[in-house]
Amino acid sequence: MAKQERAVRTRNALIESAAELFTRDGFEVVSLSTISARAGVSNGALHFHFASKAALATAVRDAAAQHFTRITSADPPSPRYGGSLQTLIDTSHALLQGLSRDVILRAGFDLGDNAEGAGEGEDLFERWSAWVEDAVARSAREGLLADVAPRDLVTTVVGATVGFAALGGHDVHWLSRTTLTRFWSLLLPRVASPQAQRGLVAAGRWAEAS
Amino acid sequence: MAKQERAVRTRNALIESAAELFTRDGFEVVSLSTISARAGVSNGALHFHFASKAALATAVRDAAAQHFTRITSADPPSPRYGGSLQTLIDTSHALLQGLSRDVILRAGFDLGDNAEGAGEGEDLFERWSAWVEDAVARSAREGLLADVAPRDLVTTVVGATVGFAALGGHDVHWLSRTTLTRFWSLLLPRVASPQAQRGLVAAGRWAEAS
Repeated sequence: MAKQERAVRTRNALIESAAELFTRDGFEVVSLSTISARAGVSNGALHFHFASKAALATAVRDAAAQHFTRITSADPPSPRYGGSLQTLIDTSHALLQGLSRDVILRAGFDLGDNAEGAGEGEDLFERWSAWVEDAVARSAREGLLADVAPRDLVTTVVGATVGFAALGGHDVHWLSRTTLTRFWSLLLPRVASPQAQRGLVAAGRWAEAS
Repeated sequence: MAKQERAVRTRNALIESAAELFTRDGFEVVSLSTISARAGVSNGALHFHFASKAALATAVRDAAAQHFTRITSADPPSPRYGGSLQTLIDTSHALLQGLSRDVILRAGFDLGDNAEGAGEGEDLFERWSAWVEDAVARSAREGLLADVAPRDLVTTVVGATVGFAALGGHDVHWLSRTTLTRFWSLLLPRVASPQAQRGLVAAGRWAEAS
């Protein structure tokens, strides 16, 4: 049991090390020995867990996809608190907070950028886009939207969040709660129905907690 | 004179070839011989013009910075046509159109991503951000803005445009005029003063021309 636990820990350390180095130096450039050294394990241990760099990239993607799923399913909509529109706000905050703190999630989005070298896997951009589309459709059904075209709102939310994520790679302030709160403060008076308006928190419902 | 002209043409072909390959395969991975082969010139010609791959990256960045300057200074604001706010709309369209067509401009934004390997140069993200800030400040002075915080508008416009650019690397429809028109159609009723509203064209003033 202790041995199995150690194996899991080694595997996770390798995934985290790979995620960090793929993001910093690029998938093509990083060598397996740099990855194992940073994880503090031997080359042999790396080869025991992963047959190739591509296999490691797939493991990073899979782990990132799990982190993404956790973020986008953490927060069931509650009609008392702005329903699905507030869930969209909260989840966008959770995603950018996740990208600022979680090197695996960040690598998952980056690896989507050059699908050629880095093996097949789920495209997190597409999953995020689909998730936003769903949340906007639910908000519309719940009567939370003002007279706006749902597609315009989807386009704007996906564009801005992906942009903040990309800019966050240069300057972390773009990933801050302040940045995204500015966005939602500008948008909400336009997109939320007057009744929904009152209950909505642009900074996210969990702003106090983080 | 013909000889000089040929030299300029060779140099430009090398810059374009490098821009294309840096974007497709990444700066670290691309070899100088691939770049010269794609440009249809000899290795010797490449070395005559550029001492190293870093020198070539600098030339790509410089060329991209020039293209960027051309885009952001093409369109002096005209009070008759929505002033500086319309100029912001038009220029954002021109930038995304540029990114969809101009491999050098695209590489300039990409090279900003990993400043380490690719040499020093101007950061186009920062220049774009500063340009938007200026345009919003001018719009405010011209009385074109509704009661919104200028910084919220800057944050939203920079985030969304950079996001559309990043998503455009996966799927070109994000760079289309339709995408950006959706964004401005959603935003304008919130951010433009009632008087400014009437004169503004979300699709850009030059929509017919392209």
